[in-house]
Amino acid sequence: MRVGVYGLGRFGRFWAETLGTRFEVYGYSRTPKAIASRHFTLTTYEGLLSCDVIILCVSISAVEEVARSLARDLSPSTLVMDTCSVKTYPLEVLSRTLPDGIDILGTHPMFGPDSAREGIAGLPIVLTPCRVTEEVSSFWEETFREMGLSVHRMTAEEHDREAAYTQGITHFVGRVLGELHLEDSPIATVGYRKLLEIREQTCNDPWQLFLDLQHYNPYTRRMREDLAQAFTRILAVLDRTLDGGADPSVR
Amino acid sequence: MRVGVYGLGRFGRFWAETLGTRFEVYGYSRTPKAIASRHFTLTTYEGLLSCDVIILCVSISAVEEVARSLARDLSPSTLVMDTCSVKTYPLEVLSRTLPDGIDILGTHPMFGPDSAREGIAGLPIVLTPCRVTEEVSSFWEETFREMGLSVHRMTAEEHDREAAYTQGITHFVGRVLGELHLEDSPIATVGYRKLLEIREQTCNDPWQLFLDLQHYNPYTRRMREDLAQAFTRILAVLDRTLDGGADPSVR
Repeated sequence: MRVGVYGLGRFGRFWAETLGTRFEVYGYSRTPKAIASRHFTLTTYEGLLSCDVIILCVSISAVEEVARSLARDLSPSTLVMDTCSVKTYPLEVLSRTLPDGIDILGTHPMFGPDSAREGIAGLPIVLTPCRVTEEVSSFWEETFREMGLSVHRMTAEEHDREAAYTQGITHFVGRVLGELHLEDSPIATVGYRKLLEIREQTCNDPWQLFLDLQHYNPYTRRMREDLAQAFTRILAVLDRTLDGGADPSVR
Repeated sequence: MRVGVYGLGRFGRFWAETLGTRFEVYGYSRTPKAIASRHFTLTTYEGLLSCDVIILCVSISAVEEVARSLARDLSPSTLVMDTCSVKTYPLEVLSRTLPDGIDILGTHPMFGPDSAREGIAGLPIVLTPCRVTEEVSSFWEETFREMGLSVHRMTAEEHDREAAYTQGITHFVGRVLGELHLEDSPIATVGYRKLLEIREQTCNDPWQLFLDLQHYNPYTRRMREDLAQAFTRILAVLDRTLDGGADPSVR
């Protein structure tokens, strides 16, 4: 099976290399800066189109444009998988844009080059079958399981609701911390070290991923409102206890 | 050497047990709920007063009241060590309240039962000599080093300035997250798991510690203002990029 990876950014290169240990992987990038790898072969747009499976590793905000271009050129019965960090928006775009003969399987590998530094074993991946036979979904479910991943099938809505409060909040907190120029300290507590790790992991990801996570997941607005309210409540408790003595019962 | 621990809350019990592996440790609590341990002996107030060293494991906001009562009863040449998470305020109180014949050595063990679950080796402790000979300071510095701790001598001001941006911010973020009732998830990313760990570690500590850390460290107000501004800046960037398209160059 020939697997094409569309987009060789930080995640695309990582995912092409990972899949390259099991499949014949061809990597395509619109910009020629992409670096060759032992585990996949660089290819042209035509080379990409000849693959049986095309995995989109493009930013969420680029999915529509990419889908429109592929819609004209794909051979019938190609399987298109996305890897976006939100699921409702890109799967709606792909179903609307790609012709009926093209299969669509949503995936969200919930890790990247940083969090998978010590291997992908046990890390979660979400599968969201969209326009695809159960046979094809099961094949990929089994494949990811054999790769050691923890596979979770869920609907796009289930994924986005859950991810807003797990991935979305982590990236938001990481970016807020990123604004503060925090430094390591010889007297850092264990908790502070974890805070620095969160900042590093999230701020290493592309800025565009952060924006897209917050804009294209319909549930992150609520998460940000909840977070802002919690922040304000804790500040208010501190103001109140400062005036009235630090009595925990006033809380 | 007889070491008395005043206060057997969560940290006091832990510290008495830890020191009990090297010293004859006597634990005193004003409330009789304290549990016995293999590593230290429960004692009365009179028993505590007969110790050579008295280590205060009371909340920061209780230091003044405790110091006033001890001031009347301590034998000359007793060494009083505090363990507070801020240093300028308690050391000012102790110097002002305890009679001249009493030695004062500030300490801040920057860990607790949670962060030291796998042992204290390598964890940081701050030493702030206040009214004490170099000989006594060096003895405790050497003792803590032999226990495997990473010892850092610093002034009370240095400690508080640094701790506001390490311990203070960690506890603040942990308490904000604590308001949100976040749950573990099968699709949790590595970063989200770290966020949950921060919440658990900080919210397991007494609420009073959180209030005291924020109220008695003169540098935490600035930290909270910086954090609030960073939060607002990130929200503003999201609003702006939502209107104008998710273009990273607008940042």
